[in-house]
Amino acid sequence: MTTIDPSTAAAPDGAAPHGAPTVYVCVTCRRAGEPEVEPRPGALLAAATVQAAHNTGVTVRRVRCLANCTRGPSAAVRCNGSWTYVFGGLDVVCAPALVEGARLLAGAADGVMPWRGRPEPLKRGLIARVPPADFQEDIE
Amino acid sequence: MTTIDPSTAAAPDGAAPHGAPTVYVCVTCRRAGEPEVEPRPGALLAAATVQAAHNTGVTVRRVRCLANCTRGPSAAVRCNGSWTYVFGGLDVVCAPALVEGARLLAGAADGVMPWRGRPEPLKRGLIARVPPADFQEDIE
Repeated sequence: MTTIDPSTAAAPDGAAPHGAPTVYVCVTCRRAGEPEVEPRPGALLAAATVQAAHNTGVTVRRVRCLANCTRGPSAAVRCNGSWTYVFGGLDVVCAPALVEGARLLAGAADGVMPWRGRPEPLKRGLIARVPPADFQEDIE
Repeated sequence: MTTIDPSTAAAPDGAAPHGAPTVYVCVTCRRAGEPEVEPRPGALLAAATVQAAHNTGVTVRRVRCLANCTRGPSAAVRCNGSWTYVFGGLDVVCAPALVEGARLLAGAADGVMPWRGRPEPLKRGLIARVPPADFQEDIE
């Protein structure tokens, strides 16, 4: 667990903080191939993530469908100005990992969630990542 | 093909246009299980998408790795204020579909890429979608 406070996390050069780390949890997700049960695994994960995020500065939003249906339960993590990460194959026990991932991202000056120290479910469950809107890489 | 001009597309209620439709193409993608060849399929897709986007108001950005490696070639599409879409299983012939998807998204007042009229590669190749930063849904 880092000691970064996402609400005040700033780049070392004094640039504006990325701030506002947010976890979007898909509440409609169920495990592929498993029978439909209520509450859905996604809804349970969302509730656990809200609880895990209490007093951390991390915002949790419930969303109906992140379209990762074949590899759910799913969640996405991002801060202002950061890359956006989509994770799958999650479970209710992954809630603290999502919150920790959001905190790591909030503390990353380059907007990239560090691999080192990243919770295991966010390594093996990585589905995709998308750069921030203003991202431009020097590629021929 | 719609006749929407993304640069002027506005919500019916007069809200600010989403604007700035952007396609992010992963240039490091290759087809899973296929031998490594240069240029990579992702780089070819990027070049074709730049060409397809000419004079459409759609911006194309080359990116090194969208982390959808097992289901590449990959691209992401988004506008300001819209949902973000990640697509996989693409091919060089999908370039016009990506541009058309970006234009559809730019013209969608609700920030959601419509299913109706969406090019086929962006239906079968949908990997995930993530809501805009300020998204909040009324869910218990």
